[in-house]
Amino acid sequence: MSELRQDPTTYDWIIIAKERAKRPHEFNKNQPANKSLPVHNDGCPFCPGNEHLTPPAEATYGEPDKWAIRVIPNKFAALSPDGDTKREEWKLFRKSHGYGRHEVVIETPLHNQFIPFMDDRQVEALIQVYKDRYHALKKDPNIKIIIIFKNHGAGAGTSLEHPHTQIVASPIVPPYIRRKYRVTTQHFDNTGRCLHHDIERAELEENVRIVADTKHFIALHPFASHYPFETWIMPKAHKSSFGDISETEVKDFAKVLKEVLMKLYVGLGNPDYNFIIHTAPVDDEHKPYYLWHMQIIPRLTQAAGFELGSGIYINVAIPEDTAVFMRDFKL
Amino acid sequence: MSELRQDPTTYDWIIIAKERAKRPHEFNKNQPANKSLPVHNDGCPFCPGNEHLTPPAEATYGEPDKWAIRVIPNKFAALSPDGDTKREEWKLFRKSHGYGRHEVVIETPLHNQFIPFMDDRQVEALIQVYKDRYHALKKDPNIKIIIIFKNHGAGAGTSLEHPHTQIVASPIVPPYIRRKYRVTTQHFDNTGRCLHHDIERAELEENVRIVADTKHFIALHPFASHYPFETWIMPKAHKSSFGDISETEVKDFAKVLKEVLMKLYVGLGNPDYNFIIHTAPVDDEHKPYYLWHMQIIPRLTQAAGFELGSGIYINVAIPEDTAVFMRDFKL
Repeated sequence: MSELRQDPTTYDWIIIAKERAKRPHEFNKNQPANKSLPVHNDGCPFCPGNEHLTPPAEATYGEPDKWAIRVIPNKFAALSPDGDTKREEWKLFRKSHGYGRHEVVIETPLHNQFIPFMDDRQVEALIQVYKDRYHALKKDPNIKIIIIFKNHGAGAGTSLEHPHTQIVASPIVPPYIRRKYRVTTQHFDNTGRCLHHDIERAELEENVRIVADTKHFIALHPFASHYPFETWIMPKAHKSSFGDISETEVKDFAKVLKEVLMKLYVGLGNPDYNFIIHTAPVDDEHKPYYLWHMQIIPRLTQAAGFELGSGIYINVAIPEDTAVFMRDFKL
Repeated sequence: MSELRQDPTTYDWIIIAKERAKRPHEFNKNQPANKSLPVHNDGCPFCPGNEHLTPPAEATYGEPDKWAIRVIPNKFAALSPDGDTKREEWKLFRKSHGYGRHEVVIETPLHNQFIPFMDDRQVEALIQVYKDRYHALKKDPNIKIIIIFKNHGAGAGTSLEHPHTQIVASPIVPPYIRRKYRVTTQHFDNTGRCLHHDIERAELEENVRIVADTKHFIALHPFASHYPFETWIMPKAHKSSFGDISETEVKDFAKVLKEVLMKLYVGLGNPDYNFIIHTAPVDDEHKPYYLWHMQIIPRLTQAAGFELGSGIYINVAIPEDTAVFMRDFKL
């Protein structure tokens, strides 16, 4: 018999389809390894030597003549810093210019160096670049939310192999993010406590969905996981904004992220995945109602009509089983 | 420059990526035609002769020894009528039995007869079966929402080729549906009018996104379309519940549905798609705040990290262009 579970951070309901659930190893995608890709690809706009194929860099890190990380405006930007943020209305139809920023962080000069294969220093530098860009982008007073995310693989929505992360800075906080923020604010008003920290405490006490537990972070498969192997990495210190991540936390976060991604890579055969850094809206970043965190979504199943039409996700993996698989997986 | 547009029924914002938008014909998927499938497939559990491979039928339509449409419980039901609907709670984690119903409507005995290739009578009979099942399922007082949906093709989440529709009856109205209902209720409170009818009137006046306009229905590509070629079919008569569709409307709806699906089939090369019938929660079905309608979502693009993490969809098609393509497409 299946089980309905409620996500305490959104109030969404999820169906854990226990009877038709697959065992964790059955989700293995057996996709080609990173080694099947060249270290350098002459046709890749993100490879060194092809800098002229991209817009000029916003920022470059590393040696003056040999960059380690490169940040560029997205050539096909979803939002761009033109026009204004005024809404126009005609009857029920409200619109505005696509004002905002859309950047690409080229994570490494090496075409095939996925995050789990970087050395610790490089992953730390990458997280630090995310933080730098967060602070650079929020200087524009029109920017109200900054979304840092990664698409790995065609099934996760990218056609570019070269490891990269994207950052969108939007003048509009969308309802999806407002709603999550509202739920945590209500919890704070009710209890005086941070919802995500209450979740962390409950998860540590129950101790069946924890994937990693370090000095500064917890990685877990959430109780009402929407997707097989969905993973949250949550800080232990109370910070609404990713922009406030400390140097010590950057180091620890880099380690946890690398480990989780490596276990997914080896354990599930290089699956496509997305990750998203959830953070409070810029105007709320110093209020104590939210906890920034990263959500990792391996793309192992396909949302169908039921999910799109109801918002109820059917998960054919049991988070308690997948968490054990991940926690105990030997690298 | 791209454009931000707000969906008036959810307040979601969408990015219409005008600069990297493809032209309508570029979305053609060139997938194998229905004729490449056999009329009968011995291994298919939905083909006549294999009735023993499915659970016993809930309802059968057509000749006594030769069914035309067959309704069965889903063998791998997401929800089933066992246990109760009580919530259990431990700390922040709320769950309940997966109580409910999950049915499959086998639309035709023919393995390869997609809806656009059925004759009008058969499509009408199919819509009538949806209505019959709606009324049968709502008799259970635990059922609070009935979701009728279709997955066509692997990219839309189905592995079974044989034409079928699914119906899930759930004891919980999910936040996604409550939210849509709340927006329409607020509009009614503000204006005394139905939001969807105000949208219909505005669309007819602007007349740039209309795909079909019949006596009882309008088909259009919505202003803030989330997906390329997303289509809404909306009735002109004010009915919150699909359960109240009249016989005359069934006939007209069947015609519009067939035409829209045929144009998608021919114009876009048999793309995978989902459709969903949106209808008011059972307890609200006779209140004047909602309008039932069908949403058709061709699966032409892949949601990526930005969509999953922000709820903002980037649409690489311009609804005004795709609507013209569909309206003027000669069959």
